Amino acid sequence: MKKIAACIGGGVIGGGWVARFLLHGWDVNVFDPAPDAQRKISEVLNNARRSLPALADVAMPEEGKLVFCDSLELAVSDAQWIQESVPERLDLKHKILGQIQSHCSDNAIIGSSTSGFKPSELQEHSTNPGQIMVAHPFNPVYLVPLVELVPSVKCPAQSVEKAQSILTAIGMKALVVRKEIDAHIADRLLEAVWREGLWLIKDDIATTEEIDDAIRFGFGLRWAQMGLFETYRIAGGEAGMAHFIGQFGPALAWPWTKLMDVPKLTDELVQKIADQSDRQSGKHSIRELERIRDDNLVGIMRVQKDANWGVGEMLREHDQRLTELVPQIDSAPDLSQPLTMYQGKVLPAWIDYNGHMNESNYLQVMSIATDNFMTFIGADGAYVESGKSYFTVETHICHIDEVKLNKPLEVKTQLIGHSEKKMHLFHSLYQPETGVLLATGEHMLLHVDLEAGKTCNAEKPINSKLATIFSHHYSLEKPKGLGRSIGC
Amino acid sequence: MKKIAACIGGGVIGGGWVARFLLHGWDVNVFDPAPDAQRKISEVLNNARRSLPALADVAMPEEGKLVFCDSLELAVSDAQWIQESVPERLDLKHKILGQIQSHCSDNAIIGSSTSGFKPSELQEHSTNPGQIMVAHPFNPVYLVPLVELVPSVKCPAQSVEKAQSILTAIGMKALVVRKEIDAHIADRLLEAVWREGLWLIKDDIATTEEIDDAIRFGFGLRWAQMGLFETYRIAGGEAGMAHFIGQFGPALAWPWTKLMDVPKLTDELVQKIADQSDRQSGKHSIRELERIRDDNLVGIMRVQKDANWGVGEMLREHDQRLTELVPQIDSAPDLSQPLTMYQGKVLPAWIDYNGHMNESNYLQVMSIATDNFMTFIGADGAYVESGKSYFTVETHICHIDEVKLNKPLEVKTQLIGHSEKKMHLFHSLYQPETGVLLATGEHMLLHVDLEAGKTCNAEKPINSKLATIFSHHYSLEKPKGLGRSIGC
Repeated sequence: MKKIAACIGGGVIGGGWVARFLLHGWDVNVFDPAPDAQRKISEVLNNARRSLPALADVAMPEEGKLVFCDSLELAVSDAQWIQESVPERLDLKHKILGQIQSHCSDNAIIGSSTSGFKPSELQEHSTNPGQIMVAHPFNPVYLVPLVELVPSVKCPAQSVEKAQSILTAIGMKALVVRKEIDAHIADRLLEAVWREGLWLIKDDIATTEEIDDAIRFGFGLRWAQMGLFETYRIAGGEAGMAHFIGQFGPALAWPWTKLMDVPKLTDELVQKIADQSDRQSGKHSIRELERIRDDNLVGIMRVQKDANWGVGEMLREHDQRLTELVPQIDSAPDLSQPLTMYQGKVLPAWIDYNGHMNESNYLQVMSIATDNFMTFIGADGAYVESGKSYFTVETHICHIDEVKLNKPLEVKTQLIGHSEKKMHLFHSLYQPETGVLLATGEHMLLHVDLEAGKTCNAEKPINSKLATIFSHHYSLEKPKGLGRSIGC
Repeated sequence: MKKIAACIGGGVIGGGWVARFLLHGWDVNVFDPAPDAQRKISEVLNNARRSLPALADVAMPEEGKLVFCDSLELAVSDAQWIQESVPERLDLKHKILGQIQSHCSDNAIIGSSTSGFKPSELQEHSTNPGQIMVAHPFNPVYLVPLVELVPSVKCPAQSVEKAQSILTAIGMKALVVRKEIDAHIADRLLEAVWREGLWLIKDDIATTEEIDDAIRFGFGLRWAQMGLFETYRIAGGEAGMAHFIGQFGPALAWPWTKLMDVPKLTDELVQKIADQSDRQSGKHSIRELERIRDDNLVGIMRVQKDANWGVGEMLREHDQRLTELVPQIDSAPDLSQPLTMYQGKVLPAWIDYNGHMNESNYLQVMSIATDNFMTFIGADGAYVESGKSYFTVETHICHIDEVKLNKPLEVKTQLIGHSEKKMHLFHSLYQPETGVLLATGEHMLLHVDLEAGKTCNAEKPINSKLATIFSHHYSLEKPKGLGRSIGC
């Protein structure tokens, strides 16, 4: 059966739903009478097309068909999922839900994007209330996986399961909310922060930027990977969650909370939290959780370093400070030996089903070494920006030994030959602790004009740097395996 | 001058400070009379040593010298920075600060890790109050960059600047808080969420795990890179921040806020927020901010995919679902031709700075084709589980043409030769739309006993399947480039 979703109401949220369904192979019917609905949705779709597939390491289904319908009836009549994303006015939602239900199948799920209304409120006046539930997503809907799925007591369990399975199929994390409540779960937390933020601004304690920095340079980094409770579980250490709350609890009664209604931390509530935390995180020791947290923090910060954004911008500035503080080994290496062009270690993502580093990551490491060598001779980021670069045209790898998770790696690079348009490199990948040779990579690179798409001479300073290196490397012993071909 | 820091009070926070200073080349004196202080600090240090340097792309300074002191006096007398991290009791803090000030230099900065007390409270009874300020860090202190630097009116501006510059030098983001306030900035926001979370648990709306998931699959991903206000600025779109608050504002008066004191959204407050937001983010258009946000979201989620954690675990499961949805390879192909062992397209993560697929992803695709060929001949996941597999020992790649984002890819695989312990494969990577050959990969694989770590004969059904394929493939034309070696 053809999968068809109907999105009633475009805009940023509706458009995000359109993108999620469409890019997962569903046909999508849109009804939105606003004159700029098509433009808005196409903008969201463009954003989604460039980013959502980047989360997958496998092929996505072929995109579904997008149809802008002239009437709500046309949009919903054949749909298995109908998503309502109209403005947050209950009278308007009632009117639109009524129209949807007079034209849609009784088996269709009707999800509402509402952040404020409870499903029982949406269901008022409906003759088939169990079909309506809250499916509250988060912007950008095409990337952020969370969707709060809130049924009322009138929604049959199998409809909730069906809804959950459809949301899962379009790549979402459907969090089924046990009991309906105003603003569901996440927006209650967000509102709490928003209220506190408004006070800080009003009283001139902090600006919007300072509040944002207090989040993204601090607990925001933790919350991208673990939430509030798992983070505190770690902070509590081996003494456990109940102990931690015992220490932390009194702060709730401190002066700044005097305007707030605070739950009393009875023994019963403390035990409930500790038990739930055990069920949630008890399979990992605190030491394990610390390492998971730290590795994620490093990764999350490094992503932003690559993007030169936020905490990453700061890390780049810090590298600059460190560089001034510490003479870098690579800035003036000993040219009479192969050059150290990579130092790192085997990352968790590089481990394959055999339990050791996957073959393609051997080349990845050598490719980084090639990039570093390019930077070393002056063919750096700015050079590539200027329209010139080196392309690898031929590679020969010999896999000599296996290497496991977290082992240090080092690449030594020898310049085998060069001309104005070529360079011939030989990388030796070692495990530096043991000196064991893990692999060799022989590479031929051509210098290209990126715009013309053909080879051209490298610029003079680069050729002269290559000549200097080669004047030392030509007399080095030729590495074993150089010029090999594969024979059976 | 030798840089010396004194850390009074070990524990998780004190230990984190020790690690930050030490790994940035400072000598560190520790005073903590607790019998397990050395063990605790060494555990924190071990965590820090494996993770903090991973943020840098340059060499870190040589580690400073760590000294556990028998007295507070010995610890602080030569220190330029003294960090107090003792338990949160004001009488205890006063006592320790008094002892510190009777032995330390007048020019030293005394930072307190307190999350609850204002600097003016810490300074009570002090004869040199301007030396004391709050330097409130976040766990893990060695990784999370935020530190709230809170001076009182008694702290001279040049001391605050000096403190900020030292904190910056150890890789921290020092957020100077303009006006002292209970719990500073970040902990006020955290307390607000904590209170709301306690209510949700107490009233059985959600468990600790569900609250954590509502954070880390949702807004936590946004807050690692942008805070509350920048995120909302984007949600508001081109209409701007004031417009957004106008829409969002009424929700503050909704029923769930009735127990809370809410600032009144006067025109003046709205304008103040909008102006601050312009100063903060106005240099980027909304469209730019959307793309920055999306790229960061993808990166932050992919980090966790590599770690198989949180949102990343979900993404891996989703890849599995997509694989089942989209047919990957033909299970009964025509043996008289090279076999189609990969069909996919160029993923965004594979694009390098030259704007086309990175060289290592050519091998990644061929490696997947090799895996698929192994599955096809029966050397599948279960076979590897049973302790046998094929390892690639040699690879020769010829890069023939470039390929750009989203272009479809196809690998055709020819069996060049085989024996009981070997197979020799030749992959041709095409762009199927145009028939253009993008690259070739020649691979020699050995059959290994994973436990013994040496070669052995493949099992009979596998050798017989290889023989069947070879009976067709041996008469195919030998592919161009077979047996090549690299020559300059």
